[in-house]
This record gives sequence, structure tokens and C-alpha cells, in this order.
Amino acid sequence: MKIKRNGRIGALIKILCDHPNKIFTLSYFTNKFNAAKSSVSEDIVVAKKLMEDLKLGKIETISGAAGGVKYIPLTSEAENKEILEDVCKKLSKTNRIIPGAYLYMADVIYDPRVVRKLGEIFATQFVGQKVDYVVTVETKGIPIALMTANALNVPLIILRRDSKVTEGSTVSINYLSGSNGKIQTMSISKRAIQSGANVIIIDDFMKAGGTAKGMIDMMNEFEAKVAGIGVVIATKEPENKVVKDYVPLLILDKVDEINGTVHIYPNDALL
Amino acid sequence: MKIKRNGRIGALIKILCDHPNKIFTLSYFTNKFNAAKSSVSEDIVVAKKLMEDLKLGKIETISGAAGGVKYIPLTSEAENKEILEDVCKKLSKTNRIIPGAYLYMADVIYDPRVVRKLGEIFATQFVGQKVDYVVTVETKGIPIALMTANALNVPLIILRRDSKVTEGSTVSINYLSGSNGKIQTMSISKRAIQSGANVIIIDDFMKAGGTAKGMIDMMNEFEAKVAGIGVVIATKEPENKVVKDYVPLLILDKVDEINGTVHIYPNDALL
Repeated sequence: MKIKRNGRIGALIKILCDHPNKIFTLSYFTNKFNAAKSSVSEDIVVAKKLMEDLKLGKIETISGAAGGVKYIPLTSEAENKEILEDVCKKLSKTNRIIPGAYLYMADVIYDPRVVRKLGEIFATQFVGQKVDYVVTVETKGIPIALMTANALNVPLIILRRDSKVTEGSTVSINYLSGSNGKIQTMSISKRAIQSGANVIIIDDFMKAGGTAKGMIDMMNEFEAKVAGIGVVIATKEPENKVVKDYVPLLILDKVDEINGTVHIYPNDALL
Repeated sequence: MKIKRNGRIGALIKILCDHPNKIFTLSYFTNKFNAAKSSVSEDIVVAKKLMEDLKLGKIETISGAAGGVKYIPLTSEAENKEILEDVCKKLSKTNRIIPGAYLYMADVIYDPRVVRKLGEIFATQFVGQKVDYVVTVETKGIPIALMTANALNVPLIILRRDSKVTEGSTVSINYLSGSNGKIQTMSISKRAIQSGANVIIIDDFMKAGGTAKGMIDMMNEFEAKVAGIGVVIATKEPENKVVKDYVPLLILDKVDEINGTVHIYPNDALL
């Protein structure tokens, strides 16, 4: 089927954006569109400029034998501000406070319309790093971790709270959860992670950092390198957490059960 | 910023496809592109035809006061065949068999590059239904359920195996897991589901159907209507499962531990 330039650019953008960070060869598009290499190259130039002008992410051309073109979903600081302020607004509603000064947030962090944007913000922070896997621990961090893996075009690994018969041989570790001072276990199939891999750790919440530290320890068991840690919400206190380098999207300062107020704000460094 | 038609169509497709099943008004695009209503209308016609020609899903215009334009990610039968046969090929590798005749599948059902396509296949099956939520139970079904929710543009609800202090008041039910004959518990925050909602249930695996039945019972607690059930893999035996209407993507006939063979095939009805 012969497709006109109008259409080619639309289709090119659709295909690239559906597969973030995947490299497509020029021949893929010349075959698909029944068009000359020179035409497709021109289409790419137009698509590239368009994405930049409208701040919809970045189209990158890679030269050489393994070359081609790929889409990188980059969020701008202005976009981060809009998205993160919107999430803060949702989370600071008084009726979210749960006895014990917890914050109900399942509806926000399980909503694909929210987490796909948060996943793109995380992916933007780790762009340029070699990432083989995104790693999380069940349960609440899974949606945001999956969307980060989606934006980075890599597989997700889910650490389990206990070992399952369906996973075969597993590696288990114990770690100290800082939030409740209890020893907990996490476990993963031996075959889940290639030795020496580069990983990004993503979770929904960090208080003392014990769970993130547990995930780092688990990665050490596989001689995997932790290239970055991202959490949706980090509490302001304690300031000294057991992990050092992490990127929080939001900072939770205070949940005041008595006055019914929540103080949460975006991480300045992302705006 | 004034954007030429070439670019407008690309940007229109990018924005629509980034937000499946979300309705955008014409004014949204006339403002964004600084273009006349008539021009944007013509762009939509071109984009519509293009998506149909390339079988990349459907762009639909909705007339009336709440009208506008939206993108529906529809998979064709040919696409289903290609995707599902590819997943079968991956899953039938001998080295996936785990003692007890289980099949290791975490790497496949946690991979965003796989599950986003499976999510679109599910969404296609339930298109035209009014869906308020996608519901799953932790853990292995979460990635595929999230991607189905993403394609349908609705929130995801995750039922937990036990009740958590961070969820506030919860509703819990007990159910009989057909696979291991044990009584199990699932639980969800009272505030998670609006009474009378329409839901789709998505899970990774169904043997006797006990877990799906448990989820239906849980929905009854909220007077929610189950509009459909989708599972990635249903076992061939037992043929009589405790739930009747469900859409499996794949049928697992046999895992033969002694001969090291796996017999799994796509659901014919989808091809």
C-alpha cells in the first residue's frame, strides 16, 4: 500500500511511540509504507522537529550498522510540574487520611492514566543509563514500575514476599523494614535475573529505606548493578535514610490526623 | 505556534494514541495547533483512514455536546494470531518446566512489550461495553490487568491477599481455590469500588476458576456488575470450571514433566 507523506508521518509517530526506546530500521518503514529511503528520511526529520516543538518527547536517529530511529519519552520540567502538582492535589484531600496517619492512595497509584505519566518521568531521569530490568517488590509499586519498564522498553522483575512453588529454585533474603521495625522476607526465582545486569529499582513509598536496601541486597546476590532508585513518595522524616541516592517524585512532610491536613509537595529537583 | 498539516496529523495521532479511549474536543486541537476547526476536522478524516488502512486501531468521532474524537486500540484477528502464537512459542520451551509440572512464565507476563499487546487484545474483546474498572487479584495478573485498564482508559483495582493497615476499612471474603483445594482470603478497601459499577475481571491463569469466582463474589459485595472475565491462560482440564463466561487468550493442554513437553495454543475464537 502506498501512503502519502501526510499519513506516513502520522503512522511513523504512532509506531515509534507505541514502542518507546525500541530501534526501528529505515527499511522497516520503507517496506511498511512502500516509500523510498530518502522520503522516509525526510519524514523522520519532520517528525523529529514536531515532537520537539510540541514537547512530546524525542525522536532520535542512530547511525551505523545497528542504526535506525527510536522514540524516547522525555518529560519536560513544565510537564513534571503539572503532573506532580496534580497528584499532590489529589493526595492532599482530607478524606484520604486513614487511622494511624496513613494516606489512602491506591486509586491514584493504580490508575494507568496517572502511572503512565509517572513512569515517563522516572524513565526521563534514568535516560542515557544502560538499563536491563526495572525491579520492584510486590504489591503497590507494581503499576508504576511496569509503566517505567514500558517507557524504557525493558522487562519488569517483581520480587515476591514469599517464595512460590511456581517459580522453581528461588533466592530469598531477609531485611529490616524501617517503617515497622520487623524482619521481612523477599524472594525471587533464580532464573529471573541475568548475572551482572544493570537495574533500576522502583517503588511506591520510602520511609526509612529498608525495603529499597533489601532490594539492593537482593541485586547483589545476582551481581547486578543498581543504576538508580526511584520512589513515588518519600517521607521527609527521617532525613537520613538507609539508602542514599534515590529520586523521589513527591515528598510527604506530614499527615496530621487531628487537624485533617496532608502536607505533600513535588521534588523540586524535577521541576 | 502554527503547525502545518503534515505535523498536525502526526501530533493528533500521538496525542490520541497516548490516551486510548479518552475523548478530546475539537477545540482542544484547534487551540493546541492554532488551526481552524475545518482544518482539524479534515486532519481527523485523514488520520482515521490512515489508522484503518494500516490496521493500527480505530479513531472514532463522537457527535453532540459531549462530543469529540477518541482513539480505540483494536487488535485485528491477524494481529492476535501473530502475538498469541509468539507467546505460545516462548512458553513451550522445555526449560520452563518446573518440578510439579508448573510452567515458569514470570518473564513473559511481566514484560511490558508483551503485556501491552495482550492488554489491547482484552480491551478489543470488551469494546462497546460500559467499563468503570478493571479488577485483578495480586500478584501475577497485575501487569496484564494494568495494561488492559490502560487500553480501556479506566482505573485498575487490585484485590489483596490480606487486609492492610494502609487501606482503612476493608471488605474481606473467603473463597475456595480450585487449584490447591485451600480456603483463601481476598480483601479490598471499602472505598475502592463505587457501588453499582461495571467491571472487567482480568487474571493471568485459570484452572478450576475458584479465584475468578472469588472475585465475582467480591464484586457482589459492592453490587458491581461483572461485564466480562479475561485470563491469559486457561487450562484445558477441568473443562467444567466454576465460572462460565470467560475469555482465555491461550489454552494450556498439558505440561509433561517426564518428556519435557508443553502443549499450549491460542484460543481459536480470537483468530
